Amino acid sequence: MNGADLLVRTLVSSGVEVCFANPGTTEMPIVTAFESTPEIRVYLGLFEGVCTGAADGYGRMLDKPAMTLLHLGPGFANGIANLHNARRAKSPVVNVVGEHATWHRDSDPPLAMDIERLARTVSGWWRTSRSAQDLAGDVDESVAAARLGQVATLIVPNDFQLAECEEHPASIRAILFDPIDPHSIEVAASRLQTFQKVALMLGGRALRKAGLHAVSRIKKAIGCDLFSQSLPGYMDRGLELPPVERIPLFPDQATSLLSRYGAVLLAGTGEPVTFFGYPGVSSRILNDEQEKITLCTDRQDVVEALECLADALGASPNLMGGNSVSTKLRRPTLPDGNLTAEKACVTLAAVQPENAIIVDEAVSSGHFYDALTIGLPPHTVLPGSGGSIGLGIPCATGAAIACPDRPVINLEADGSALYTIQALWTQAREGLNVTTLVCSNRSYRILQTQLNRAGITSYGLKTQALTELTQPAIDWVRTAEGFGVPATTVSTTEALVRELCKALAEPGPHLIEMLLP
Amino acid sequence: MNGADLLVRTLVSSGVEVCFANPGTTEMPIVTAFESTPEIRVYLGLFEGVCTGAADGYGRMLDKPAMTLLHLGPGFANGIANLHNARRAKSPVVNVVGEHATWHRDSDPPLAMDIERLARTVSGWWRTSRSAQDLAGDVDESVAAARLGQVATLIVPNDFQLAECEEHPASIRAILFDPIDPHSIEVAASRLQTFQKVALMLGGRALRKAGLHAVSRIKKAIGCDLFSQSLPGYMDRGLELPPVERIPLFPDQATSLLSRYGAVLLAGTGEPVTFFGYPGVSSRILNDEQEKITLCTDRQDVVEALECLADALGASPNLMGGNSVSTKLRRPTLPDGNLTAEKACVTLAAVQPENAIIVDEAVSSGHFYDALTIGLPPHTVLPGSGGSIGLGIPCATGAAIACPDRPVINLEADGSALYTIQALWTQAREGLNVTTLVCSNRSYRILQTQLNRAGITSYGLKTQALTELTQPAIDWVRTAEGFGVPATTVSTTEALVRELCKALAEPGPHLIEMLLP
Repeated sequence: MNGADLLVRTLVSSGVEVCFANPGTTEMPIVTAFESTPEIRVYLGLFEGVCTGAADGYGRMLDKPAMTLLHLGPGFANGIANLHNARRAKSPVVNVVGEHATWHRDSDPPLAMDIERLARTVSGWWRTSRSAQDLAGDVDESVAAARLGQVATLIVPNDFQLAECEEHPASIRAILFDPIDPHSIEVAASRLQTFQKVALMLGGRALRKAGLHAVSRIKKAIGCDLFSQSLPGYMDRGLELPPVERIPLFPDQATSLLSRYGAVLLAGTGEPVTFFGYPGVSSRILNDEQEKITLCTDRQDVVEALECLADALGASPNLMGGNSVSTKLRRPTLPDGNLTAEKACVTLAAVQPENAIIVDEAVSSGHFYDALTIGLPPHTVLPGSGGSIGLGIPCATGAAIACPDRPVINLEADGSALYTIQALWTQAREGLNVTTLVCSNRSYRILQTQLNRAGITSYGLKTQALTELTQPAIDWVRTAEGFGVPATTVSTTEALVRELCKALAEPGPHLIEMLLP
Repeated sequence: MNGADLLVRTLVSSGVEVCFANPGTTEMPIVTAFESTPEIRVYLGLFEGVCTGAADGYGRMLDKPAMTLLHLGPGFANGIANLHNARRAKSPVVNVVGEHATWHRDSDPPLAMDIERLARTVSGWWRTSRSAQDLAGDVDESVAAARLGQVATLIVPNDFQLAECEEHPASIRAILFDPIDPHSIEVAASRLQTFQKVALMLGGRALRKAGLHAVSRIKKAIGCDLFSQSLPGYMDRGLELPPVERIPLFPDQATSLLSRYGAVLLAGTGEPVTFFGYPGVSSRILNDEQEKITLCTDRQDVVEALECLADALGASPNLMGGNSVSTKLRRPTLPDGNLTAEKACVTLAAVQPENAIIVDEAVSSGHFYDALTIGLPPHTVLPGSGGSIGLGIPCATGAAIACPDRPVINLEADGSALYTIQALWTQAREGLNVTTLVCSNRSYRILQTQLNRAGITSYGLKTQALTELTQPAIDWVRTAEGFGVPATTVSTTEALVRELCKALAEPGPHLIEMLLP
């Protein structure tokens, strides 16, 4: 066997099942090694940002790493923006990047770049392999690092892929969380009990079912309110789960919402900060008087820590009763007439099927949706995480590959969709059950909102040119069909309901352009 | 005035006339500053790779810097692949990247990244500004660095953009080339005269008219042959210019071509190396016995050095006569019947108008074209440079903005086109005279060729999945029309001639899908 075989077999024995790839010549031995490895499925993305965003979506859904295969420095660079999102979402991703043969690299061929320097900007773990035989250990470590909720990047020179080497007995490593310190949990519990108004700020695994189960116990015991960051990356939501509110994007609204709490427990996330620095406004959402209690570190298991805290608070293991979880189905009434962003969100909440995965990259159009979903049937929301646009369509693609039995609905801003529109083709090729709802307001509306908030309400021609997606407007139906995804345009609520239900009933991907004011 | 005004005014007074932008909140003061600066034109790209590729195309054509305006680390990251191409083409590009306010950055907001680390991978000059008042000097230095043929990246914290500051008298700096050493030129001249067979390997400004003028004198004096790297970035070609041959991509062919020369003069480029490292094949194209003479450094003016060398060789200032330049118009005969890659190239050479700009990112389909163009009317070819695909459509966009009176024809591989397809929209919005000829062979053919050369001729299903652009095939007509560009598909030479002539006669962009076997 050669190094590429060893690499792929070790990935498989470490539990990696899928690879999102756009390989080049330097990765061809790995492509060849895939052929003799039925345990790994491969998916082509037409651009590397598709691959990394799909790996993020897959990782978010299954909480286990997908692999990407990227071509040298430029290929990795094209994937960075969505790896930044994956890093902020604490998604497990293992990037394998081909590198020129070690004996060739110093001749500075045209495609040579400093890949490791690029990798360090988004990776919690990175390495350039030093021999073919080392690849087994490298893969082992990279997967273990990813499983902690990190982006791991392994750079593999082409000569090591081709070099003969021996099989290596590999095994799936357990996730190596640091142990929880019972004393610190008890201190946290006793501090929390001294405050009347307590908020839990949840992130990472705390927002998955197991985490929310522990959170419900805590809520029942001390009556706290539950929040997440504005862009928490992953949220299980709906009936039988406690209601968690995303804090608003704008600092005045977020500060006002959280100011009533004497103490804020940070579980799986850091202290919230404003998205941008606004002149005269603090970067911090919480004030100095508010007590901040950090439950655990990034290297500890937040779910275990939450369970320990619930125990320390004397919480009942029984969740039923009280107001800790939503138990009453509440669908909003269908609106009618011409679509607005709010009506689009209400319609989605009224129609979305049980167990749906909602990929929310609606940016300015989606903030109505969140509050409508507490009483819906169980579902998962994948919101943004790192704020880099172009995540939605790739992320929905990866989520659909991870969970083929669950319908995926991607509420998607038009400006963001255009960043990685090529991902539609992968949805078509794989026949994925993804419905993309494009919020077609024909602008970078969030920029216009930010300008308005800064007191600039009348734009000059250049500001218009740089914030409006007009002249020409994108023809979404043709664009989607060009990539093999059937598409339609709607401008009324009634048409949206009809087309959304039709799209959900038919197999394969669909795109619906929602014309919004 | 504020820092953003100072920045934009200094850019203008440094000679920058266009900005390719995809700004976000952290760059809004610069957008506002554009409004009061009529001297700078702004163009929106729907993805940052469009902006950086367009800046590269503009810089190649005018040999002066365009500005890009990019949003934080992720926005810059999206532009890296085409900045890598710009770096390899020695294009002058000035990137301005917004950064979080200095007082906000340490709170690690969601979009925070190490922008400077990213910038260093592609920039010959980079800096994070240290105050608003420093911005004038920063811009001055960045533009001067770019004019040397580099990517320059200036990172500007948002608070410095907003801070009040004083106007600064700025001026266009002369390009600060290092002086030519007459003695080293004389040594080169006397060495060259000791060899029977001499090759000139040309790059950078040596491939522009002024450089080729000097090269013609040298060729007439010593009868040398002229070559460029496989991907030289820019070439003036056609009648009245000496014929320069791009060395083949594959090392056996390149080595065989160059082995006959006793000496190779390197003018504006380094020693040629193979594109990839092939087992058992040297990275170097030239052998140890061949004398390599480097004419000048990157910081010296290669055109001046060539003129000095011509003088030292006693070359006549008169170019006419002899075989140093092509003087006879030779158009290939139009082929007929079903299209092939070769017939597509012949058709293009037979039809292309005088003064055309040919952006060549055809990868596997374009290698027939080069040899056909020596006897054509004067034109400019923009080939690849750094080998990172996704350059063509953005580069054609920037070239058309730089030279609105010249027709631009983009011979474009289908796989590469899909990387930055969004650039079509900018062509539509700006009504640019660009005709995109998509070489639709529905595969990453170059990868299949590389596999064949490595002895792998029968692919498994995964290799097929990762190298074929089928299931579904891209519908190029719909995709282009989705972005506002009229499009058609042709499968015969006759149809190609008809549609190409029509596209060239009509104003605005067009796309022609050429169905190739």
